[in-house]
Amino acid sequence: MSLIVQKFGGSSVADADCIRRVAGIIADTFRAGNEVIVVLSAQGDTTDELLDKAAELNPRASKRELDMLMSTGEQVSISLMAMCLKGMGVPAVSLTGWQIGMHTNSDYGSARIERVTGERIKKELGQGRVVLVAGFQGINPSGDITTLGRGGSDTSAVAIAAAMHADKCQIFTDVDGVYTADPRKVPGARKLNEITYEEMQELASLGAQVLHNRSVELAKKYDVRLEVLSSFKNTPGTLVKEVTKNMEHLEITGIAKDTETVLFAIIGLKDEPGKAFKVFRLLANAKVNVDIILQSIGRSESKDISFTVPKSDMDKTLAVLEENRDSLGYEQIDVDANVAKVSTVGVGMVSTPGVAARMFEALSDAKININMISTSEIKISVLVAADQADRAMNVIHEKFFGK
Amino acid sequence: MSLIVQKFGGSSVADADCIRRVAGIIADTFRAGNEVIVVLSAQGDTTDELLDKAAELNPRASKRELDMLMSTGEQVSISLMAMCLKGMGVPAVSLTGWQIGMHTNSDYGSARIERVTGERIKKELGQGRVVLVAGFQGINPSGDITTLGRGGSDTSAVAIAAAMHADKCQIFTDVDGVYTADPRKVPGARKLNEITYEEMQELASLGAQVLHNRSVELAKKYDVRLEVLSSFKNTPGTLVKEVTKNMEHLEITGIAKDTETVLFAIIGLKDEPGKAFKVFRLLANAKVNVDIILQSIGRSESKDISFTVPKSDMDKTLAVLEENRDSLGYEQIDVDANVAKVSTVGVGMVSTPGVAARMFEALSDAKININMISTSEIKISVLVAADQADRAMNVIHEKFFGK
Repeated sequence: MSLIVQKFGGSSVADADCIRRVAGIIADTFRAGNEVIVVLSAQGDTTDELLDKAAELNPRASKRELDMLMSTGEQVSISLMAMCLKGMGVPAVSLTGWQIGMHTNSDYGSARIERVTGERIKKELGQGRVVLVAGFQGINPSGDITTLGRGGSDTSAVAIAAAMHADKCQIFTDVDGVYTADPRKVPGARKLNEITYEEMQELASLGAQVLHNRSVELAKKYDVRLEVLSSFKNTPGTLVKEVTKNMEHLEITGIAKDTETVLFAIIGLKDEPGKAFKVFRLLANAKVNVDIILQSIGRSESKDISFTVPKSDMDKTLAVLEENRDSLGYEQIDVDANVAKVSTVGVGMVSTPGVAARMFEALSDAKININMISTSEIKISVLVAADQADRAMNVIHEKFFGK
Repeated sequence: MSLIVQKFGGSSVADADCIRRVAGIIADTFRAGNEVIVVLSAQGDTTDELLDKAAELNPRASKRELDMLMSTGEQVSISLMAMCLKGMGVPAVSLTGWQIGMHTNSDYGSARIERVTGERIKKELGQGRVVLVAGFQGINPSGDITTLGRGGSDTSAVAIAAAMHADKCQIFTDVDGVYTADPRKVPGARKLNEITYEEMQELASLGAQVLHNRSVELAKKYDVRLEVLSSFKNTPGTLVKEVTKNMEHLEITGIAKDTETVLFAIIGLKDEPGKAFKVFRLLANAKVNVDIILQSIGRSESKDISFTVPKSDMDKTLAVLEENRDSLGYEQIDVDANVAKVSTVGVGMVSTPGVAARMFEALSDAKININMISTSEIKISVLVAADQADRAMNVIHEKFFGK
């Protein structure tokens, strides 16, 4: 008997038919003799509908009240799934975030999990029930409902798997695993049987939609065996795990694209010591996530600094720079939102020289201009024009994986 | 400074415009220097929509899961109202049933309130906030969400008013108070300025929709000053309180009609001692609420027994009688669902002889046949044909209140 955590997203529980199909998967797992904990998201468009209602009454609604509102979505999903399972003869019980003791800090809208007590889950499993848990939500020290922000249900699932020492955490999505690139953009993309936590983490933060960065980070930290698989097809998915000797050897594992990025250029910044530091300290104070940075070599008395930030931070970045125009002393600010970051990821890079060169060669052959480059031990990112990003992914993919 | 509990029903918070209007009422009360606790129901059709979703998946869904599902409706209302109030500059916070410590027993779907701790409410009031509480819901000793059943939000409001020693509990509805009869059926009906708990309780259980029986019972028990008023018109409502000498003197206070009743006749029951007792013990064991009973005077060896039950208990009653046909030994069962109970209520009855006689006279003059009669200290009920019920209310109303 294994203890298995299964997570299903909003599209998997969108309507009665979807719920019945997912209930079938859960029932099969349970009837195979496993203990099963299921984490669910809100149904289909529920989240957007609730946000619309809120915006109509107060476009700047407090995050505490938004969390109170949003958390109802998952509660609806779990109770409906419990009813469906019971109708199929599978004993089941639904539990909210506060009922399972999903304790978080008080950052409403993007709360961090502090601990999962899980006593209630243990009790219900002990009584032979499938336990359905509302994802995305927790409770803070004041006894108020919090939500975990983007990818929250994935994170809930991994945190519960860690706390309950589950044998496996299965993330069911509408794709059947992790691919070497987005199959909708790169026709030759192929499914990976396994991938390391580090690679998955990089891919997730570099734009791959399949798993949220935070959930992978947590899985790595607590050594949770993650599996990404399809809720539509009954095929093996991709296993996310530690590096092992037996892993299939690939120079690179995946290629990702991130179009949610924008390029800033500060032109004619006075060439004084500490100026660049000052720019980035101001941005850090404003909680702007600066990504790639490129600083021109000083010519005469001024220099240029370019950097990318997430699109969601664009307005904030512009405001910070304009407020501090006098103290920073620059000539002008250029903003370019028509850029995309294309990245290759792979733990094999470290031991394989020339990966970057081959990537750049592929782009150069295709006459795709590279604006900026950023590298780490296991990834290489380049900034290209947004309309060339898909072609860039394809030529890189072809270079490493063939046609 | 007074502490005021205000309750608004589902139609009062059905959409953004409704919420804004109700927020205006709350804001006025708060800005007049009062402490305000607001109890809300689910928005408009939410409850029905959720029930439809449940029925699609499992027509016999467990009550525990239904409560989990239904309780989300009120949570949506309170968070939206909090956002709206804050947008108007009124500090506000929303709290669920479990957050305010609304402790109930475990009768899912119709839980009884055991105690309200109210510490969280006290804290929030102390910080100068309007407290918005999800009505209709509580938490049981296992830490599961319960709902209070029909009229639950009224009951929540009164229980909170009692626990917090509120100066007043205002129930806002779509009518502007308690009337001598339903104004849609009896054009001459007039609004009462005040009514006693006992009268209100009788009227509520006899079919008047304005307040739920349980909430009035609770208000009486804990001496909560109840006020029924309109959320659409800014006019004084009806005060529900103890009898006082200064109360306006009326022989009767109100006339109510109940069409949710059905008449059973057991024909040819063997005239043996204990037979009638046996019938009603069987029905009591099956939790059927028997209302008016009429037993014929024994002729020869058999007698007839007639009684009314709520329409919702009709199938159960028939089943009990048919299962026990042999042991009861009757000839046949007649069922008549085309009946209505018309009742007059008033504490003045006790001290005014002849109220019943005048009521019967009114009906007799109008050639309305009385099937059964039932009386208590402060009410007289008659069973008439359903299609004569509205006319019966009108002729009685005219007799006591004039044209």
